[in-house]
Amino acid sequence: MTAAPTPRRPWEETASAGVSEVRTLALDGLFTLAGGRTLERVDVAYETYGELDATASNAVLVCHALSGDSHVAGLRPGEDPARAKPGWWDIMVGPGKAIDTDRFFVVCSNVLGGCSGTTGPASIDPATGAPYASGFPLVTIEDMVDVQAKLLDALGIDSLAAVVGGSMGGMQAIAWARRYPERVRAIVADATTPRLGAQAIAFNEVGRQAILTDPDFANGHYYDALAQPDVGLGIARMIGHITYLSDDSMRAKFGRRLVDRSDYRYEFVHEFEVESYLAHQGRSFVDRFDANTYLYMTKAMDYFDLAVDADSLAAALRETRARWLVLSFSSDWLFPTASSLELVRALQVVGAEVSYAEITSPYGHDAFLLEPERQHAYIAPFLAHAGSEDR
Amino acid sequence: MTAAPTPRRPWEETASAGVSEVRTLALDGLFTLAGGRTLERVDVAYETYGELDATASNAVLVCHALSGDSHVAGLRPGEDPARAKPGWWDIMVGPGKAIDTDRFFVVCSNVLGGCSGTTGPASIDPATGAPYASGFPLVTIEDMVDVQAKLLDALGIDSLAAVVGGSMGGMQAIAWARRYPERVRAIVADATTPRLGAQAIAFNEVGRQAILTDPDFANGHYYDALAQPDVGLGIARMIGHITYLSDDSMRAKFGRRLVDRSDYRYEFVHEFEVESYLAHQGRSFVDRFDANTYLYMTKAMDYFDLAVDADSLAAALRETRARWLVLSFSSDWLFPTASSLELVRALQVVGAEVSYAEITSPYGHDAFLLEPERQHAYIAPFLAHAGSEDR
Repeated sequence: MTAAPTPRRPWEETASAGVSEVRTLALDGLFTLAGGRTLERVDVAYETYGELDATASNAVLVCHALSGDSHVAGLRPGEDPARAKPGWWDIMVGPGKAIDTDRFFVVCSNVLGGCSGTTGPASIDPATGAPYASGFPLVTIEDMVDVQAKLLDALGIDSLAAVVGGSMGGMQAIAWARRYPERVRAIVADATTPRLGAQAIAFNEVGRQAILTDPDFANGHYYDALAQPDVGLGIARMIGHITYLSDDSMRAKFGRRLVDRSDYRYEFVHEFEVESYLAHQGRSFVDRFDANTYLYMTKAMDYFDLAVDADSLAAALRETRARWLVLSFSSDWLFPTASSLELVRALQVVGAEVSYAEITSPYGHDAFLLEPERQHAYIAPFLAHAGSEDR
Repeated sequence: MTAAPTPRRPWEETASAGVSEVRTLALDGLFTLAGGRTLERVDVAYETYGELDATASNAVLVCHALSGDSHVAGLRPGEDPARAKPGWWDIMVGPGKAIDTDRFFVVCSNVLGGCSGTTGPASIDPATGAPYASGFPLVTIEDMVDVQAKLLDALGIDSLAAVVGGSMGGMQAIAWARRYPERVRAIVADATTPRLGAQAIAFNEVGRQAILTDPDFANGHYYDALAQPDVGLGIARMIGHITYLSDDSMRAKFGRRLVDRSDYRYEFVHEFEVESYLAHQGRSFVDRFDANTYLYMTKAMDYFDLAVDADSLAAALRETRARWLVLSFSSDWLFPTASSLELVRALQVVGAEVSYAEITSPYGHDAFLLEPERQHAYIAPFLAHAGSEDR
């Protein structure tokens, strides 16, 4: 008797979204931000996966988190599939995956203020011919969503089958419900919150202080300098990383293990594995991310409050016409279940169609990047009903 | 009908331990540290409260936490009682309080490596005539305890009625059980752990990196410089502060309230109350604390592992003859209940007399400094049995 072949599971990497290239769109006209300032020119870097159907009704917008970009799945042109790391949510986006590119036209764009192609602090200010740096206006989650809406206009997409996002991406998904309720038919708010609490703001603030006080930060004008604020950005990233994991997952992953010996060295060096992990995370982040963007993204997250100018969360959600799926993770203490439940309750108050689950996972906030199977189990059936037929 | 006068509660500040003055003792002989290095001269700054009885049997050693000192209760000479802040554990130490100075002779000394009178990195190295700075040897919790034991020798105290400590002070209390089991009759391990997990080490490490990478740190040799590593120490303290509070207590204390206006400013300034609170905590800490000592204390905490050279926590505790009281706080996520329970279970395995409680409190790790009444309820009766009669 021979064993039956193991069936291929849809969230496995074998089902790749293929090769994806970044395109850039220059938005028409002046762009006005929530803070009142304007940008003369906004470029949006975006990628698409799958095919837009004839009625432009199968589009799913995926929104990225703090350190993400438009490259949500698959490989970049020229990358070796055997060695390259695929896009940041390859576990969820691809043929047969939860966000099925055989069925949906998936759009993902780098957010306003980002550092991966969309206009941000490193972009050239047309007024000066030099990078904006700290002259770039502060952006909000709503500003990011407005840019996405203009991108969709340009792509001929009036109505989204769904908007999906985790963490800061989930904030954008939530903001869509209020900003463009008529343009979105389903919303997946994953590991996110309608507003941060004091603890999360505090962690963001300490990270910002590490950057702002780095002598190489130079008030943000470091782009042409010999040194960049790598130390400050590295420290900010280390703090972030601790908050993305859970105590349990860190205990399981590192415990008290020492790097390369069983005895203490009695020096200020990296001795514990967790120290060397953090140092690596800090170092590798500064190679791919801009310190100014880190400041702008964390501030946008802190500012985000769905109910900031409404009487309540429910009042802010009164216009939603979308079906909702809200997911949280049991060990996520940065975007805890309690704040997802606040959102769910507000949606129930306004009579929205809302489905909710707390997924049991040891991985903390990072679970939304690390739990393909459990997220698939909720997101795939939810999106199965999000086709063109529900327009 | 007149209302009966409210009875005075023993934990109220009215029962002051009085005025306490720091004394300094120079230890005899060379002091050898766990790491193998030696110190030619160790001075210990200490304070005492109450009277030592004729048989020197009523001494209670109180051990301080990371940022504490020997001034556990009462006022310093010359301080105005109406305006001065009393010692760091005034809620627990004084006449009629849980650690009753009418009954016990309370000793509290600044730890080895500290910056409040006991020999540490800011002290003069006799070999060079200059401050040790980063030339000071790394210390362990066991080294701190050894210095305390020598201080007690000099004070004529063979046996402690109790050793009591919270947080890093609790680590010292636990270390006493292993290092000098014959000298301690009761142990209160409050908001502490027999070893830190990866998450707590990670937070300590990020704080250290903020200091070590501050350009004004100058490899620790900043004592005679114009600038000190205040920025790095301030950031380390901010991180620490977030971990000392709980998400709930921060939500209750600050929420999303803005400092001085109801609208966002769209600038990188302190807008949320929690940001300005953290900035204040960072600033005020650098005025009273030494960055090098911060490095040495956090490293000592990271190193502490009661079972480091034993097969198990229980094996490490086999020699204990003390009665134990272990306390944890429900919202303390830095020294969580789970690690207190590890200690309790190990003590049960070796048949030690151990009493345990998780105190319900919203205040996170700081609860041990903020919950007089609930701690009194456990510590006072526990110590009531810790007199000379139990020798």
